[in-house]
Amino acid sequence: MSWQYLAAEGGPTLTGGDRGIVVVVAVIALAALAVGYVLLKEVLAAGQGTTKMQDIAKAVQEGAGAYLKRQRNTLTIFGAIVFVLLFFLPADGWGERIGRSLFFVIGAGFSFAIGYLGMWLATQANLRVAAAAREQGGRETAMRIAFRTGGVVGMSTVGLGLFGAAIVVLVYAGDAPKVLEGFGFGAALIAMFMRVGGGIFTKAADVGADLVGKVEQGIPEDDPRNAATIADNVGDNVGDCAGMAADLFESYAVTLVAALILGSTAFGAQGLLFPLIVPALGIITAVIGVYITRAKAGESGLTAINRSFYISALISAILCTAAAFIFLPSSFSELDGPSDPSIGGNPAVIATVAVIIGIVLAGIILWLTGYFTGTEYKPVKDVGKSSLTGAATVILSGISVGFESAVYTAVVIGASVYGAFLLSGSLFVALFAVALAGCGLLTTVGVIVAMDTFGPVSDNAQGIAEMSGDVDGEGAAILTELDAVGNTTKAITKGIAIATAVLAATALFGSYLTAITEKVTEIGVDPSDIAAFSLSIVSPNVLVGVILGAAVVFMFSGLAVNAVSRAAGAVVYEVRRQFHENPGIMDGTVRPEYGRVVDICTRDSLRELATPGLLAVLAPIAVGFGLGTGPLAGYLAGAIATGTLMAVFLANSGGSWDNAKKLVEDGNHGGKGSDAHEATIIGDTVGDPFKDTAGPAINPLIKVMNLVSLLIAPAIVTLSIGESENGVLRAVFALVAILLIVGAVFVSKRRGTAIAENPAEAVTNGAA
Amino acid sequence: MSWQYLAAEGGPTLTGGDRGIVVVVAVIALAALAVGYVLLKEVLAAGQGTTKMQDIAKAVQEGAGAYLKRQRNTLTIFGAIVFVLLFFLPADGWGERIGRSLFFVIGAGFSFAIGYLGMWLATQANLRVAAAAREQGGRETAMRIAFRTGGVVGMSTVGLGLFGAAIVVLVYAGDAPKVLEGFGFGAALIAMFMRVGGGIFTKAADVGADLVGKVEQGIPEDDPRNAATIADNVGDNVGDCAGMAADLFESYAVTLVAALILGSTAFGAQGLLFPLIVPALGIITAVIGVYITRAKAGESGLTAINRSFYISALISAILCTAAAFIFLPSSFSELDGPSDPSIGGNPAVIATVAVIIGIVLAGIILWLTGYFTGTEYKPVKDVGKSSLTGAATVILSGISVGFESAVYTAVVIGASVYGAFLLSGSLFVALFAVALAGCGLLTTVGVIVAMDTFGPVSDNAQGIAEMSGDVDGEGAAILTELDAVGNTTKAITKGIAIATAVLAATALFGSYLTAITEKVTEIGVDPSDIAAFSLSIVSPNVLVGVILGAAVVFMFSGLAVNAVSRAAGAVVYEVRRQFHENPGIMDGTVRPEYGRVVDICTRDSLRELATPGLLAVLAPIAVGFGLGTGPLAGYLAGAIATGTLMAVFLANSGGSWDNAKKLVEDGNHGGKGSDAHEATIIGDTVGDPFKDTAGPAINPLIKVMNLVSLLIAPAIVTLSIGESENGVLRAVFALVAILLIVGAVFVSKRRGTAIAENPAEAVTNGAA
Repeated sequence: MSWQYLAAEGGPTLTGGDRGIVVVVAVIALAALAVGYVLLKEVLAAGQGTTKMQDIAKAVQEGAGAYLKRQRNTLTIFGAIVFVLLFFLPADGWGERIGRSLFFVIGAGFSFAIGYLGMWLATQANLRVAAAAREQGGRETAMRIAFRTGGVVGMSTVGLGLFGAAIVVLVYAGDAPKVLEGFGFGAALIAMFMRVGGGIFTKAADVGADLVGKVEQGIPEDDPRNAATIADNVGDNVGDCAGMAADLFESYAVTLVAALILGSTAFGAQGLLFPLIVPALGIITAVIGVYITRAKAGESGLTAINRSFYISALISAILCTAAAFIFLPSSFSELDGPSDPSIGGNPAVIATVAVIIGIVLAGIILWLTGYFTGTEYKPVKDVGKSSLTGAATVILSGISVGFESAVYTAVVIGASVYGAFLLSGSLFVALFAVALAGCGLLTTVGVIVAMDTFGPVSDNAQGIAEMSGDVDGEGAAILTELDAVGNTTKAITKGIAIATAVLAATALFGSYLTAITEKVTEIGVDPSDIAAFSLSIVSPNVLVGVILGAAVVFMFSGLAVNAVSRAAGAVVYEVRRQFHENPGIMDGTVRPEYGRVVDICTRDSLRELATPGLLAVLAPIAVGFGLGTGPLAGYLAGAIATGTLMAVFLANSGGSWDNAKKLVEDGNHGGKGSDAHEATIIGDTVGDPFKDTAGPAINPLIKVMNLVSLLIAPAIVTLSIGESENGVLRAVFALVAILLIVGAVFVSKRRGTAIAENPAEAVTNGAA
Repeated sequence: MSWQYLAAEGGPTLTGGDRGIVVVVAVIALAALAVGYVLLKEVLAAGQGTTKMQDIAKAVQEGAGAYLKRQRNTLTIFGAIVFVLLFFLPADGWGERIGRSLFFVIGAGFSFAIGYLGMWLATQANLRVAAAAREQGGRETAMRIAFRTGGVVGMSTVGLGLFGAAIVVLVYAGDAPKVLEGFGFGAALIAMFMRVGGGIFTKAADVGADLVGKVEQGIPEDDPRNAATIADNVGDNVGDCAGMAADLFESYAVTLVAALILGSTAFGAQGLLFPLIVPALGIITAVIGVYITRAKAGESGLTAINRSFYISALISAILCTAAAFIFLPSSFSELDGPSDPSIGGNPAVIATVAVIIGIVLAGIILWLTGYFTGTEYKPVKDVGKSSLTGAATVILSGISVGFESAVYTAVVIGASVYGAFLLSGSLFVALFAVALAGCGLLTTVGVIVAMDTFGPVSDNAQGIAEMSGDVDGEGAAILTELDAVGNTTKAITKGIAIATAVLAATALFGSYLTAITEKVTEIGVDPSDIAAFSLSIVSPNVLVGVILGAAVVFMFSGLAVNAVSRAAGAVVYEVRRQFHENPGIMDGTVRPEYGRVVDICTRDSLRELATPGLLAVLAPIAVGFGLGTGPLAGYLAGAIATGTLMAVFLANSGGSWDNAKKLVEDGNHGGKGSDAHEATIIGDTVGDPFKDTAGPAINPLIKVMNLVSLLIAPAIVTLSIGESENGVLRAVFALVAILLIVGAVFVSKRRGTAIAENPAEAVTNGAA
């Protein structure tokens, strides 16, 4: 556990046979993409319904495309700046420096591409799901299309993630953790921006549409007279599809990166290969999972999805166990070049148990989230019942559900980390075991992405059906059922994503320690003499770091919620203006200007994502350069701990409110239009930015902050020692970061809480 | 920063002159009690209004008295168990062992006594404040009575706290940190139970009364036809007065304890005396502060209170600076027996700066909280405006206010800890500086308690006025104004209390390290060989500890909110039953059975406090024995960081909703009875358990967990080393703790979310 323990050794070289294995992994990754292509063809071949439905779908497609195009332009500029800045950070020579920047771009590009694909395909699929629901016996077809759409995205996510990692290993073997850091950082950074931006877009449109439509005008959701309807449907795609797909790709990439960085130190050459083999096996089982998902008659869609998840998880566990015992020896001395061959324990057993811990963790989270957010269990039923005593009790009971489920999820994740940690007395083998648990979790990502995509596709299909008026009776009922299932699967994905964040971040702490130790050794000082390097949790400066880390999670969540409020206020204002200036809209004789609301959402969400985005990148810079590497480590720990709880709390509170509303709408406690219904609508509106904006963005936030810290750690060490100019430079960096954060917060404050200002007043006047 | 650094040395002996100083401090403490007595006489001498008002006050007094009596019986049993258990924990000899248990009882007794006094006096004062408001020019008299009532409680809090600490120092000098731990633990444990129990009582009654009265029957707050009205007023006293007074006494005692434990190691004999001198000076300035508080005509009550706070804080800073330079030498070598006389730096300067940091921190928190929860600033105005778009936006904007203010408060507290830490390169002097910052904060406690007591007394005065119908016109307006001021002062107190928790807990980490190091040295092992001892934040087991610490804060908050929901459900049921069975109540011809609702609240709150209380005591035992001292340190850090943010978030969200409601009731956005009013009532109801149950209980929670950890640390070390039976014993302890927690949670789950079950359904039927 001492400082010198993790000092990096030269990485092992790969033999020809090893390279062969990596090539096979790369081929499996490409095969996943091919399977995705086959599924894609199948989805696109389905029927597209009436012309009216196609028109609506086209409007959604155009809106979503326009948003992503503008976001791409914004992110390209931002990416270019980071690309250049990365060159200035310390690295071992120019090869590593160039590789890091290059793979940063590749990671970022893949992340964006997956997001784009997810969104594009969802906008194609929703129309086809709605069309299928109209047909005789359409339930099974509709569900198959929705789930196979997810399959395409799932295959692409795992395919691209694994392919990227395999290429890095082929080119660099274990010599270039910094290149992997660049790859992971690119993926996480873009995913965070897509999550935040998409999350603001989708909820600004949704909340805005609900406030004017349901609450003020008393017209149903997705009513075509509401000018925000198209924007709402566009939002589902850019937020829940593009943002989510990029997020899970990032989870996949960063977890793999964490495992590969630790691999060669812990397990030698095999340590570089095994973390690739596990997800490759996961791809095989994901294909099985996607193809076997089929709801039997009378069976809930969620039951069918869960069944295929558990079956594919079980197959993964078996295949990974076999692979571990075939591929790994039974003692460390038989491994090819681990940094310490004298460690006790059996690598095959350690790897097997670690991977199984990860798979079991995924299963438990799936069950826990399903229990806390599903309509058929006690928690959501209780939230539903609390609607009888009004909105206040709905809010309080949803918050309780969120707190409680967050605790159980955090305890389960903590237990997994601790379980993996116990597998070896050697710190870096223990950290590698944690990373392998992450790889175990990854074997389920293919199915998870498929499950998640299911949600927004069904939601949008329902939107198209409602707006066109061309789907009714049984077809509408089918889509409502699929939508409720989607609410739960979306919450599950968020739970899995945050678990990968904790596992990856814990493992990356090993790299953090290595990075500091290398630099300290190079300079030749005793770190225990310097308070800024102390990693002891009882040191007050480290504790201050923990407090700041927890604070950043609260700040980020508050900013995200506020951004939604502001953007929603603008939407409310615009929709009211249209109703006011064009009475024909309410009569159904005039078509509202849908495009204007889409434009407002696009503009506002891209503007609003800047502040939380900058906070994520700059806060670790401020803490690291300002207080030192010890407090920065504390900061990361605080952010991981609080972030885990906050993310699950926000996701599950939101999920429970959404499904409590569905319960009431299904005729419980007075049904649609009752006071109870109104109380649950208030709950759902509160939950919207919780579950779809703030909550899911915390996962990439944690990874971005970890990778930024890892990248800057050597620079902090260099500037913490020696000449006083160094100290000045350190202070300058910290100060610039702080000023930029304060400036960004100030600018977004200046915009005011739009929803609480002019718009509302203006409309009260308008209504009077 | 190494392991051996804090190994305890024998404490210094006090000279005759030193003892003289301690005696003077004790006399000042007694003088504070005398001043309190004078103020008490003044309060009691005031007029008591009409017979009707006196009858109502009497009912409240009886209810509150009955509650505290039952609580005392419950707590006596619990205290006796802990008293016995404490004997089994390691200590240096029987003297220390007996002293620890004895002072545990004294701390517990003082804590309860202060709580009882605060409550008893408040129930006397509210009547007199209401009576004063009826008189010509009553505003000033009413405010003076309310504030002087606070003065009595403030003087008693600081008097008893300082007297207790002075006695320990006189008897034990610096030799018995364990005795001080016992004193602090007793104070914190009882305060936590009183906070939780009182918090559940007050909000169950308040929420229950509002749900039936305002929401269902449309009758105003404090309407005598509502059977829960008396219980609501009793609740203000047992929650906001008894709970708060005990809580601040505990903050005072534990902060002093933390300073005294570190004092002799860092500063020798002077280190034992200076932490007593600072609060003694604080008592003098608090007396000034209480006497100068007088609202000028046309000036808000808050302005007057703030002015006297700032004046007394300034005088404290000047007096403490003078004391430091008179009392402390300019180099460590001139101190009487510090553990390392060769440390660089000037003790007088270090002490001065540290104390001033604490005083400035109190001032900033006062300002920040006032800004975020006061009716005249932007945040609450924004929450008020958001009521125009409905309850959902009220909830979202209040949550944003809470998140944001929590971040700023946490950053300011973190900056104070870091600032104090920077004062010395020696870890234990730095920790002592943090503790001295806490002592600086304590100089303001007298005024703070006076400010806080102001809140419930005004609230109750308004209640009595409303129920009796004997105060109207200007008198009622005065009481409404005082009540709004009270909402903000209550939020401020919570901010100050949580700051003491962070400062005390950070300083107590020093004692934690000492406790472990002593034991490890005694046994003679190298702690860096044992993973369970690692304090490195990058070690996965420590990180798991941080996650569990954050989780406990969420769990505790969720349990507290749930307990309120359940108990409120029972109140709602009872009030509805009375309305249903006695139609005469609604006509005003039959008097409701107030006593039954008081009984229900008493019974339910005492039953409901068990689960969160057990969680606080048992969770550190489970983590410590289960995972080791390293993860337990991580656990405490996680709990401190997340607890700070959560406590401020809950307090300030709640405060902002409460005052946003007041804004609307003052005629903004449509005024009373409008949709906007209804939206803010929902916000206020959500905020009730946030700000008065869960939020304020987090402060004593953190202290209890810290002190439990400190008490068990040596036992954990002993059982972590050597024979395998020890490991078995450790596992058994952990398992028993976990089973008790799980059992307690299970039992409270079984009670069900009453509000969401029978009552609601039953009444829907009743109403139909």
